[in-house]
Amino acid sequence: MNGATSVNGPQHAGATGPFAWIAEQDRTRRAAGLRRELRPRPAESALLDLAGNDYLGLTRHPEVTRAGADACLRWGAGATGSRLVTGSTALHAELEAELADFTGFEAALVFASGYAANLAAVTALTAPGTLLVSDAANHASLIDGCRLSRATTEVVRHADPDAVAKALDGHRGAAVVVSDTVFSVDGDAAPLAALAAVCREYGAGLLVDDAHGLGVLGAEGRGAAAAAGLAGAPDLVCTATLSKALGAQGGVVLGPAAVIEHLVNAARTFIFDTGLAPAAAGAALGALRLLRREPERAGRSRAVARDFHRRLTGAGLESSAPDACVVSVRAPSADSAVAWAAACRAEGLAVGCFRPPSVPDGVSRLRLTARCDLTDSQVADAADIIVRTAPRP
Amino acid sequence: MNGATSVNGPQHAGATGPFAWIAEQDRTRRAAGLRRELRPRPAESALLDLAGNDYLGLTRHPEVTRAGADACLRWGAGATGSRLVTGSTALHAELEAELADFTGFEAALVFASGYAANLAAVTALTAPGTLLVSDAANHASLIDGCRLSRATTEVVRHADPDAVAKALDGHRGAAVVVSDTVFSVDGDAAPLAALAAVCREYGAGLLVDDAHGLGVLGAEGRGAAAAAGLAGAPDLVCTATLSKALGAQGGVVLGPAAVIEHLVNAARTFIFDTGLAPAAAGAALGALRLLRREPERAGRSRAVARDFHRRLTGAGLESSAPDACVVSVRAPSADSAVAWAAACRAEGLAVGCFRPPSVPDGVSRLRLTARCDLTDSQVADAADIIVRTAPRP
Repeated sequence: MNGATSVNGPQHAGATGPFAWIAEQDRTRRAAGLRRELRPRPAESALLDLAGNDYLGLTRHPEVTRAGADACLRWGAGATGSRLVTGSTALHAELEAELADFTGFEAALVFASGYAANLAAVTALTAPGTLLVSDAANHASLIDGCRLSRATTEVVRHADPDAVAKALDGHRGAAVVVSDTVFSVDGDAAPLAALAAVCREYGAGLLVDDAHGLGVLGAEGRGAAAAAGLAGAPDLVCTATLSKALGAQGGVVLGPAAVIEHLVNAARTFIFDTGLAPAAAGAALGALRLLRREPERAGRSRAVARDFHRRLTGAGLESSAPDACVVSVRAPSADSAVAWAAACRAEGLAVGCFRPPSVPDGVSRLRLTARCDLTDSQVADAADIIVRTAPRP
Repeated sequence: MNGATSVNGPQHAGATGPFAWIAEQDRTRRAAGLRRELRPRPAESALLDLAGNDYLGLTRHPEVTRAGADACLRWGAGATGSRLVTGSTALHAELEAELADFTGFEAALVFASGYAANLAAVTALTAPGTLLVSDAANHASLIDGCRLSRATTEVVRHADPDAVAKALDGHRGAAVVVSDTVFSVDGDAAPLAALAAVCREYGAGLLVDDAHGLGVLGAEGRGAAAAAGLAGAPDLVCTATLSKALGAQGGVVLGPAAVIEHLVNAARTFIFDTGLAPAAAGAALGALRLLRREPERAGRSRAVARDFHRRLTGAGLESSAPDACVVSVRAPSADSAVAWAAACRAEGLAVGCFRPPSVPDGVSRLRLTARCDLTDSQVADAADIIVRTAPRP
């Protein structure tokens, strides 16, 4: 989250006129050390990537890139329109059928991005009067879904089924509980079985975002719902992304066929957005088929995460136990987190650096992602670098 | 907007439990003839496509699909993370520099979808207290941007600069006027020069969505802002999509560099979404370069639209004059529009069919899109079919 800017031309003097207020915000961000710049990366890099979300090492797998390239050549570079007009191809239908089958849901609907899938699911599954009960650490796209919906949202304490029960207890009428399955900042899992039990007790729907679980959780990577024995439940809707473990782009909503058909008719980000590009659909399908052939990738990715965590905490760093592939390490301040990430980079390691406002609790962190294709010695060397460059307490 | 469903398995009995209310909505839609189903298309079809938004005939152009496929093979099937972490490649930076140069803006920022670009621009350019003045016919993504923002939104009469002036006149403080440049349903252009003049008079910012203008409007397809002599103005921000004239996927925000840098720091759909897939970025770049070599594609696409309009109105059909590539033909009812589109399809013609709720005025329409690669005789034959299959008044 730092580096060179990619905007055109020389340093500008700052905006004038109606957008002049932006300059003031820019000064405030600079003063607080919170200004982000883009750092475009080259196609080939000597850095070891512990920052991306390519948990299964598939985004550059020749079988996956070949599937994406072939789809682009065969189906065209774009979907050409809304999924309701010209944007649905047989490739999209094939991907949807395989995603539903793999995850154990009745039906699937693919979107241009995971963000769009979450906006769609939250808004289309609620109506005025619905109560949305939302985990305090939910992803921005779920939060924006709540804001866009006509429902009333109650934000509850993170990963707390009792707080969910309390929120539902006082409500008459429809309710939907919304949660990430694996939280993107700290990598901890939601108490899915307990949430599902509370939802059933109160007759509420459960909507979970498995962006960091699909491909990773469960024996074969079938995701959080399958791992919890909940896949295909009539009161559960699950979203996920095609851009993390599956190495491509796009999002998906999984659920009962009636729910999916409802989304086709009611979800604005489905109806009024161009369909997912064929290359992304083809690559995701290729990745899914590869994972079905090599299901051990899922377990290996989690083992790598646990190895990182064991080594880092063993050296005295503060890191919460990973439930999937995200390993979060606390930093004393935003500035020290940036310096730490830069020191790692100087030693050949790309790590994520999360600072406010990306971290709602205000605690800056390094964020490492495990990949199934890292060797034990790569993990050991990387952990050594992170420990060696850590800020002095 | 009709056809076979792509959900898995046999006909389901309908949802039960917390999502059972969906079955009631489904019955209402069926009774009103407004139920949509997906119709996945094959890779090759004998149908003449007048329904997609591939205005310049580029989505299946071998140079464009080759560029997309090569980018997938070279850069990977996905961007692997947020643009702020690992999701910015040199390819994204190159695309952004070329888009800014081509359209005449200082800087550009590329998003995973046009929907995301619009949500980003509207929300990041407003604050509590900002007045958003929004054209009544704006695209769903601009409307959702207004809903997501903390600003106050005043919806004004379609394409009416006087109504905009009146809304701005009563307001103290920051204001942003939001409008499509070419409206997606009827294909009419916004009065851009007049809107810009009103905005300057009142010190308001102007944000326009050029989804249907980029690649089409102006002598070389540089878009609505360039055509109006407004490109690069310090008080203008322009969004567009890479999925229509450029044949790929994704969205872009164009504007002053300070505004673009602000979006990098403040736009949630930029910060919290995976970056655009390399294949889409590469294909859009390929399309842009092809358009620069063959700028006559822009004028030809508009000439085809005018030819359609002349032939259809000459035969007594009700169609408004197209300002870009969208030709809208009114139908007496939703049912007759569906039947009309089906009759066209039976004669080898794919046309769009817009019904409520996609059309806010409740008037169902056929929506035809012109493409620069249609021959005069294809246009003549297609117009004949549309006239011959028209509902009897």
